[in-house]
Amino acid sequence: MSAAPIDFYFDFVSPYGYFASRRIDALGESLGRRVRWRAILLGPILKETGAAPFTTGPSKARYGTHDWARIARADGAPYVFPDPFPYATLALTRCFYVLEDRDPALAHAFAKRAYEAVFTAGRPVTEPAEVVAIAAAAGADPTGLAEAMTSPAAKERLKAEIAAAAEAGVIGSPFFIVDGEPFWGSDRMDELRRWVETGGW
Amino acid sequence: MSAAPIDFYFDFVSPYGYFASRRIDALGESLGRRVRWRAILLGPILKETGAAPFTTGPSKARYGTHDWARIARADGAPYVFPDPFPYATLALTRCFYVLEDRDPALAHAFAKRAYEAVFTAGRPVTEPAEVVAIAAAAGADPTGLAEAMTSPAAKERLKAEIAAAAEAGVIGSPFFIVDGEPFWGSDRMDELRRWVETGGW
Repeated sequence: MSAAPIDFYFDFVSPYGYFASRRIDALGESLGRRVRWRAILLGPILKETGAAPFTTGPSKARYGTHDWARIARADGAPYVFPDPFPYATLALTRCFYVLEDRDPALAHAFAKRAYEAVFTAGRPVTEPAEVVAIAAAAGADPTGLAEAMTSPAAKERLKAEIAAAAEAGVIGSPFFIVDGEPFWGSDRMDELRRWVETGGW
Repeated sequence: MSAAPIDFYFDFVSPYGYFASRRIDALGESLGRRVRWRAILLGPILKETGAAPFTTGPSKARYGTHDWARIARADGAPYVFPDPFPYATLALTRCFYVLEDRDPALAHAFAKRAYEAVFTAGRPVTEPAEVVAIAAAAGADPTGLAEAMTSPAAKERLKAEIAAAAEAGVIGSPFFIVDGEPFWGSDRMDELRRWVETGGW
């Protein structure tokens, strides 16, 4: 797998990101591409694009709710819509990068567990103590983790990651970039596959 | 084709709508479903959802521009990005319904020609005289058409159509509803096909 990785951007609050997270590693594997998971916060990203999240406006929320359940059924994905929704993903996202600095594989395992915890139990994970528990379950040493998550370094790291994502053109979740080519949405993963397989068009 | 039609909602300013318009009739044909073309104005629809069009924010505009060109290449669709963009589609949309009242087939032919005029020449069609010329080319009697387009009846008709679309849950362009099932985006047409073919999931 020496070719360029697939960058996979996601917000822990994003149901579309959750569905993509269940399929992206297998997709990378089948394409011979490493997948770099990048947790982001949609808030600052959407502020730049002027877009509204799926919770703005009753019609859009209704469509999203319907579409997410339909995707879950199509994918055979365990899925319980989180209540309340939306919820703050700051603690999860900061923890992701603290763990990545220790070991990228740890951050990856944490992200998968975090998404599962939220979307299979339907229970948002927002409190630092809950976040640390998920990290521990993923294999991390919980000692000092809560403190590390709120350190100035962790705050700066997340800011820099979000700025880098915005600079790379990320405008939603999930968002993929491979060989410089951007794809927005879990419904574009087949297109990404064709792009890599054919060398683009 | 006695089964329920596919309702195909589109705004004449929407590149995704243009790409969908080139494929929707064949899709309906292959599924044994009639396609009801419904021209809408995204402005009032987006106001309700709080969403922003693809022209808001440089990142989103950049992604859209890139994505539209990529779809055009994938589809082998003639495509020149209109300049200026966006542009007003009020005259085109009102004309669509004036023609539909005369003959739905006429409105359909007009819509196809209007989309082609804009997106193959890259030239917005906003002036009533240009709109009438397209209608005439589509087979309509141009006599009195410009007047009919600005009549109180035409204004009310369009308002009612947009209200009905919003009521049906339409939140973007293109948007499809078949057997009560909503699909948003030209990238969901294969999903719509599977839905109808399998009876849903």
